[in-house]
Amino acid sequence: MSETPTQNSMLSNIPYGSIAIGHTVSVEKTVSQREIILFAALSGDLNPIHLDRHYAASTDFGQPIAHGMLCGAFISATIATHLPGPGSIYRGQTIKFTQPVFACDTLTITLTVINKKDRLKLVTLACVVSNQDNNVVAKGEASVIASEEKVDIAASELPTITIN
Amino acid sequence: MSETPTQNSMLSNIPYGSIAIGHTVSVEKTVSQREIILFAALSGDLNPIHLDRHYAASTDFGQPIAHGMLCGAFISATIATHLPGPGSIYRGQTIKFTQPVFACDTLTITLTVINKKDRLKLVTLACVVSNQDNNVVAKGEASVIASEEKVDIAASELPTITIN
Repeated sequence: MSETPTQNSMLSNIPYGSIAIGHTVSVEKTVSQREIILFAALSGDLNPIHLDRHYAASTDFGQPIAHGMLCGAFISATIATHLPGPGSIYRGQTIKFTQPVFACDTLTITLTVINKKDRLKLVTLACVVSNQDNNVVAKGEASVIASEEKVDIAASELPTITIN
Repeated sequence: MSETPTQNSMLSNIPYGSIAIGHTVSVEKTVSQREIILFAALSGDLNPIHLDRHYAASTDFGQPIAHGMLCGAFISATIATHLPGPGSIYRGQTIKFTQPVFACDTLTITLTVINKKDRLKLVTLACVVSNQDNNVVAKGEASVIASEEKVDIAASELPTITIN
């Protein structure tokens, strides 16, 4: 498995003053063995329930499951790139893991603004991650300080990552 | 950058009945550009504040910072491999990001059992991530269902991951 560097695309934020309660964004992510291997590599969680098809087949799940916190990574990326986007300062997250995530699941990460605190420019986001069957696999709330300025910035290019 | 597959080592849990309030574990993780690139690749967060040394030098941070949720990944791995360890079911996490994490920081992830609910075999863990200067960079609480059985299982081997 190899991923070519992504095109240099622009990241744009929604400045604090333009964020309204009820504002929502949804982003789709397909989970593959690649994301599970990368999460295992960076976190150090090498449990065979995530990585070994034969072992996972012997468990109640019947197949490998993704690390739950992969949903946390997807939520954090959606905050950083979409709502509020670049220039945000991530202050905190709550997350409940409600259903297993399997390789090949297509997840939809939906963020909705549910509160604003003007003094701190603090935005509270309801975060819901659901799968292709509309089952909620994770949900919680994020606290983010949004930039007051408009930020338009080129996304960095990644080096090529090869998994043998 | 390339990482050879890890040796097949054993993962062992602490069964629910053997977990006492006050039980604590600490694990050290050194953050490098490798973890930041892998987190960017799997999450899709390509903000230059994490990846572009020149851009980051122009910000208040002065250098690239790790994605905050990398601390969440480290906490989740410590739960899955140490306390309670394999066989756990991760139910939820709260996390506050209190200080930036930089490449080359050495983080200590400390989990401490602060509550048990026998009916559900549910364990609440206080989670603290601190850096080499003893500054807390992230903290929160985890909810985990611990296995009642002793689980001793071989960690999976990872394929080789090469970053060009």
